[in-house]
Amino acid sequence: VSPSSSIVVLDSGLGGLTVVRALQAALPQEHVLYFGDTARVPWGNKSPANVCAFVRQIIAYLRPHDPKHVLLACNTATALALSVVRGDFPGLSISGVIEPGARAAIEAAGAKAEPVIGVIATEATVRSKAYERAIHRRRHYARLLLRPTPLLVPIIEEGRTAEDPLVRLALRQYLRPLLERHIDVLVLGCTHYPMLKGLIAHMVGGRVRVIDSAEQCAEDVAKRLRAAGLMRAAGDGQSSERLRCFVTDDSARFGLLASRFLQRTVDAPTLVPLDDLTRAGDAVRPMRRAG
Amino acid sequence: VSPSSSIVVLDSGLGGLTVVRALQAALPQEHVLYFGDTARVPWGNKSPANVCAFVRQIIAYLRPHDPKHVLLACNTATALALSVVRGDFPGLSISGVIEPGARAAIEAAGAKAEPVIGVIATEATVRSKAYERAIHRRRHYARLLLRPTPLLVPIIEEGRTAEDPLVRLALRQYLRPLLERHIDVLVLGCTHYPMLKGLIAHMVGGRVRVIDSAEQCAEDVAKRLRAAGLMRAAGDGQSSERLRCFVTDDSARFGLLASRFLQRTVDAPTLVPLDDLTRAGDAVRPMRRAG
Repeated sequence: VSPSSSIVVLDSGLGGLTVVRALQAALPQEHVLYFGDTARVPWGNKSPANVCAFVRQIIAYLRPHDPKHVLLACNTATALALSVVRGDFPGLSISGVIEPGARAAIEAAGAKAEPVIGVIATEATVRSKAYERAIHRRRHYARLLLRPTPLLVPIIEEGRTAEDPLVRLALRQYLRPLLERHIDVLVLGCTHYPMLKGLIAHMVGGRVRVIDSAEQCAEDVAKRLRAAGLMRAAGDGQSSERLRCFVTDDSARFGLLASRFLQRTVDAPTLVPLDDLTRAGDAVRPMRRAG
Repeated sequence: VSPSSSIVVLDSGLGGLTVVRALQAALPQEHVLYFGDTARVPWGNKSPANVCAFVRQIIAYLRPHDPKHVLLACNTATALALSVVRGDFPGLSISGVIEPGARAAIEAAGAKAEPVIGVIATEATVRSKAYERAIHRRRHYARLLLRPTPLLVPIIEEGRTAEDPLVRLALRQYLRPLLERHIDVLVLGCTHYPMLKGLIAHMVGGRVRVIDSAEQCAEDVAKRLRAAGLMRAAGDGQSSERLRCFVTDDSARFGLLASRFLQRTVDAPTLVPLDDLTRAGDAVRPMRRAG
């Protein structure tokens, strides 16, 4: 591992590209390998055992690229798999999106004695209680309201925008119970949701601070690289090589969705057969296949 | 294979249970093995190569049960994989949901010279043109309007019902272009959609015939078994063994969703690890893994 090594960013699908966008804005000289498991997306309604296996396989598959850091750019993966894969890959620097988001939520809550923090996320993230743990570790007296918002990912992936009355109705239904309980802060607990950040901020009003985990995450990775002396030299690598994408499904949707999340065009991705992922995962935990 | 063999019904997830319900109503004496690939659901936004591989693995995995028939209770699987897996498993009786639905749509259109047939389905089913082929083979002059309706599956899986204003708004948006072009028949081209059949029939009005592929499919399977002399004797097997479920993800959602689709409670499913499916698929096409 050296400063010229790449950063791996992985997600269930393409939502993690919102984090890549923030990461490349904060660290324009870095090279990113992005992996979207588009054959098995979404992960937000799946079990911890499967999500852990998926994340383990992807890291094992990209390990030969000798990444200097691996970022789980997916709240579900972070909630269900981060501690497990840290155990599977000792010596590899791995982080997620929940700690940076929780930290930013606490900061945004400021000095209030008992701030009310709302989180919207997938069902799996809500069930995991990962946000409760991350926030209560820092502020014992914060009140937390978590709300699963399972339609938002398919709404965003269908290409619907803030002008669509259905998007407004869905957000109104999901946000109402949070607003009735006077949240001070709202955490966007899914890497797709920054696509609707403007509308969400408008709907919750100026009094409620909206936390976009993509930006927080990019800052967190920058801090980790700086601390480890692994920042790539500025001006080195402003090439077309800055982003290489891997996906497990070559559907026609990639180009369309990727450019929407990244807000620029992106090169065609490398298609990774699921069999190759299975084999890579077997090499990490070979006993699992003995049954 | 004998009349006492089981019928395999497979789907990307649990929507295919609407077909099981119709099948068990039409053929109460039959035993059904249901497979829901809940770790990789949905398939409706994925590529032909992956959907074919998923279906092949599932059939190979259940083949040792010696089923007398395999029903792909999923429009996406039928559209993308039926002809391929028929080639992979010669001698195994396999059918899908599209031919029965297309046949029923033609019958419902009656004697009209140029009937207008609307189909709502997933993106992959629409892209495959499988409904165009199946309908135009029978009625060259039918006019077809296909509409991808990707939000309906997540809406149904979230447990939303006909009373929810968001469900009505989504249907109004999706059905408007079909109604403006005066469809005579509307095919529900996804096995989840029968859950909203009442509301859809109400919204399109009495003049438009709504085709529920679940019912058509059950009749089609009954006809095939009868023709092959493989109907199970009536009164034989009215036991709790009538339905056994297999899933690839053990999320908390199974019991809730399964009982909603089936309209009765269902025994806990058998959890099948994805590794076991991969191995079963390898045995069918061993060369694919040699790369």
